[in-house]
Amino acid sequence: MSEFEDVVARVRERVDPTPSERAELREAAGRLVARAEDALADHGVEADVMQVGSTARGTWVRGDRDIDVFVRFDPTLSREELEDLGLAVGNQVLPDGHEEYAEHPYVKGSFEGYEVDLVPCYRVEAATEIQSAVDRTPFHNVYLRERLTDDLAADVRLLKQFLKGIGAYGSDLRTQGFSGYLTELLVLEYGGFREVLEAARDWHPPVEHDPEAHAAATFDDPLVVIDPTDPERNVAAVVSREQVARLQHYARAFLDDPREDVFFPDARLALDPADVRSHLERRGTNALAVRFDAPDLVEDQLYPQLRRSRKGLVRGLEHAGFEVVRSAAWADDSAVLFVELATATLPAIERHEGPPVHVGEHATGFFEKYEDADVYGPFLDGHRYVVERERDVRTAAGFATERLGEVALGTHVASIVEAGDYEVLVDADVAVLAEEFGRELAAYFDPIP
Amino acid sequence: MSEFEDVVARVRERVDPTPSERAELREAAGRLVARAEDALADHGVEADVMQVGSTARGTWVRGDRDIDVFVRFDPTLSREELEDLGLAVGNQVLPDGHEEYAEHPYVKGSFEGYEVDLVPCYRVEAATEIQSAVDRTPFHNVYLRERLTDDLAADVRLLKQFLKGIGAYGSDLRTQGFSGYLTELLVLEYGGFREVLEAARDWHPPVEHDPEAHAAATFDDPLVVIDPTDPERNVAAVVSREQVARLQHYARAFLDDPREDVFFPDARLALDPADVRSHLERRGTNALAVRFDAPDLVEDQLYPQLRRSRKGLVRGLEHAGFEVVRSAAWADDSAVLFVELATATLPAIERHEGPPVHVGEHATGFFEKYEDADVYGPFLDGHRYVVERERDVRTAAGFATERLGEVALGTHVASIVEAGDYEVLVDADVAVLAEEFGRELAAYFDPIP
Repeated sequence: MSEFEDVVARVRERVDPTPSERAELREAAGRLVARAEDALADHGVEADVMQVGSTARGTWVRGDRDIDVFVRFDPTLSREELEDLGLAVGNQVLPDGHEEYAEHPYVKGSFEGYEVDLVPCYRVEAATEIQSAVDRTPFHNVYLRERLTDDLAADVRLLKQFLKGIGAYGSDLRTQGFSGYLTELLVLEYGGFREVLEAARDWHPPVEHDPEAHAAATFDDPLVVIDPTDPERNVAAVVSREQVARLQHYARAFLDDPREDVFFPDARLALDPADVRSHLERRGTNALAVRFDAPDLVEDQLYPQLRRSRKGLVRGLEHAGFEVVRSAAWADDSAVLFVELATATLPAIERHEGPPVHVGEHATGFFEKYEDADVYGPFLDGHRYVVERERDVRTAAGFATERLGEVALGTHVASIVEAGDYEVLVDADVAVLAEEFGRELAAYFDPIP
Repeated sequence: MSEFEDVVARVRERVDPTPSERAELREAAGRLVARAEDALADHGVEADVMQVGSTARGTWVRGDRDIDVFVRFDPTLSREELEDLGLAVGNQVLPDGHEEYAEHPYVKGSFEGYEVDLVPCYRVEAATEIQSAVDRTPFHNVYLRERLTDDLAADVRLLKQFLKGIGAYGSDLRTQGFSGYLTELLVLEYGGFREVLEAARDWHPPVEHDPEAHAAATFDDPLVVIDPTDPERNVAAVVSREQVARLQHYARAFLDDPREDVFFPDARLALDPADVRSHLERRGTNALAVRFDAPDLVEDQLYPQLRRSRKGLVRGLEHAGFEVVRSAAWADDSAVLFVELATATLPAIERHEGPPVHVGEHATGFFEKYEDADVYGPFLDGHRYVVERERDVRTAAGFATERLGEVALGTHVASIVEAGDYEVLVDADVAVLAEEFGRELAAYFDPIP
């Protein structure tokens, strides 16, 4: 047996559900579906109940205990009727559950030890006629169940665990990685786990696949996989350039030297404040952190806002003349925009270029504005007027304190900043962040692909 | 009388040669020419003697005591014969003179209190047939004498003094400004001093003139005045963009508010070391100076070398990660490359971008090179590998000490640097430069157009 096969066999020992796990899940799902059908009968409504998701397709990784059940109502129902009925059925099936909201509300709860999502949707004729994104799921289910053999399903589990191990699994907006459905389509498309890695090793993004050869739109994404059930949708739209590169990197590394620990990496050791201080000292950089209470948002709203806020802060600092070495944003109970800078203090003056002398009134206006001002100049640099005027903000901390409201921030972050409900930490003082973000700081100061 | 005319009249009082000055000069020049003709007769050679330059055309500014005499030999003479004869005649006419070299040798000496250049050249048929640049001068002389009326000559003197006052007079490679001949052509072209200023005020470089409408070449210069005696030559080739802008600026300022002091500015007060320290403190910048004995070169060789060396140093520093605020180069007994920086010390690490992950062997090579190296990373930033590695040089002084030999320098400066015959001064220590370059530092720290 090759080293590759040997490692894969050992990983399968860990990720394939056991026969008893399969049997128990199948039986529990059967009872759950029956219960939903009973509830529908109680309400005198006709609707299909359908188990979907990885546990319906045999592609779940051992230990996952999620069952997704979709209730497909007649498309003539109004949205309000659908929501009311969906929640009524959901609450009856999962009496200890609670309501959540994606595009419309559904019920989440536990059933015989499984985590269950009970989602109402419309029974449309084709995925192209969907009224909301959830209507599409049953079509995915049908498409995959028809095509995924047991061997392919086993390879899907391998690829999922591989992507989890490298931090690229999940289509949430924090990860911007590979969804379960995308993983299944890639295994189908290339024919197996090894084939996906071999292909990814040599990808030259943009990489485009259209399994049903029916694409009806073009996409500007690094990875494009046209949904077999919807010619206008890229299943990989959320996958970032960096996650594509990450898969390529680890595919190459694994094919070259197959190792089980790629699938199951050790958790990082959290840094403590002294570690943070010593890293900053070793790097000879300056640190700035903006900390506030994390706004009460779901991750898919929170992380895009933090990303936007981090970029806004970085651009603002750069525009003000600071050189940013690297930056990050983290959230837990608090949220942090973290920026590492090449220098903490800028000169007291800043260069301000005026127009070329030959542009008449503009040039005269510039000269007259500054002629008697408290600046150096105006003088000539080549054909332009230049002055060196007093700089507003000389320190990164000063920028974060006085000018943060002027940069592009996420909506909720902007409100927090406007209210002044944030704290600015500088240099060695950022070490205190290790108390909440020790692992994030470990990843920051010991970065791997 | 308008304010303009009033100021001009007062300036003319100061720059027009007095009648006695004119008469004395005319007589002295006559005796000088006669002496040259006698010397030629003594050598049994036939040649024309011709007084040229501003004192031959009445365009000199009061107090100038330069007489230029050209001896035009037959073009059939060999270069060697021309040089031998030219020097022999020159030494006879100016027994206390010495030999100098432009394109070929000539004699410089004094005669009745005047500074005399006695230059041998070829008597060619047209300026287009010249064998060396000096052969052209007699043609300029003839062209201008035929056209410059007394009134225009007076306006040439005004424009010359104006250009001197603003620091834009002189076609030497230190000034990169307006030559006497160019000044005369501009006054001819526009019709007077005021007309030149009014035109310059509205120039949109490139500005092109071709008085004889015979241009036979194109030029990529901000100011182009085709030589009336040579269709392939731009008389203004040496004029920098900045000097064009300077004339525009002061033309505008003077027309708006005519003031005599533009023609005769006060000399700047030299800074002393304490002034330099206090400027640097006020500006919150860091200074670096590289000082060495000025190489023994004529200014037209020295200044281009210093300019090139300054640019090389600035680019080297920027490439190494430093931000340069401003720079200058000065020469007297010593020469100095002076650079003002936004920051003195860079981080201990520097970002080093690798290839995109998808570029196969390149990417793998980069990753493997740094995988076990003492760096931060490799990690991913978007689709690229990045490492943060130890920076070679963290201070500007370190750069000047260790890396100066790697930047583009003027030839002689490069030899000096290679021999290590230079000194590096940093921050407050640069104040000592005020002892030699107090005026230059004054201009640097109080810059005007």
